Amino acid sequence: MIRFQTAQEAEDAFYDALEERDQTKMMAVWDDSPDIALLLPMQALVTGGKVRDLLRDLLRSDMELELQIKHIQWVEIGELAIHYVEEQPEGPPGSAVPPLYAVNIYRRRGESGWTMILHQNAPAPPPPGAMPPGMSIPPRVG
Amino acid sequence: MIRFQTAQEAEDAFYDALEERDQTKMMAVWDDSPDIALLLPMQALVTGGKVRDLLRDLLRSDMELELQIKHIQWVEIGELAIHYVEEQPEGPPGSAVPPLYAVNIYRRRGESGWTMILHQNAPAPPPPGAMPPGMSIPPRVG
Repeated sequence: MIRFQTAQEAEDAFYDALEERDQTKMMAVWDDSPDIALLLPMQALVTGGKVRDLLRDLLRSDMELELQIKHIQWVEIGELAIHYVEEQPEGPPGSAVPPLYAVNIYRRRGESGWTMILHQNAPAPPPPGAMPPGMSIPPRVG
Repeated sequence: MIRFQTAQEAEDAFYDALEERDQTKMMAVWDDSPDIALLLPMQALVTGGKVRDLLRDLLRSDMELELQIKHIQWVEIGELAIHYVEEQPEGPPGSAVPPLYAVNIYRRRGESGWTMILHQNAPAPPPPGAMPPGMSIPPRVG
């Protein structure tokens, strides 16, 4: 099993695996515990083995998986590292594809290095003025 | 400063503060560090003091903030607790409002108890068949 010496190495491998659509590299990034979770926009949250199933589907899909990553903030607490990042999908020259925002959590497994335990991302904000401030939870129905 | 003896107590206070639109209770739930982060659907990720600004806007908005919470999974690692939850907005009787999925992270601060460091939620999945499996990242443009 490939392990990573830093959370950043695990993160680089995660985004490389997405871009290269490399199933083996992707699977090696994740922790071998039922604690792992994946939450993608417009998907139900999945945990444990279902994370790997959803990742396989994602790598096989025709989605744009080449993302420019910009770090917003890193937090390291005990054996966990939380990375807040902006994911910018590549688009054709001159296009303005909005970014996604992601939270990635990594766990230090002693000598064997770092693994990913959570990836969650969220859709980009709408254009200015399209939604009122705080608009995030479905409005009252009826 | 109010602190909570368990991560669950902090979580209960968070959702009570949303439902009651109680600014004081909401602010007491969160950690006093620049490490905190908030990611709501269709919003940019915010960290530190901007988390409190966005929460204030949210509590003042007319969004539906009464949510039925269902725990999907809990993970406690060192001084952090990660809760994966389903948030079901209340709707009129007979309506079928789709759930949101959230990840909440709490930090144990020694004797002073638990505080929230991350809240992130994501839109509900679309109706079956509306999107292909793995559809989560904007499709290739052009």
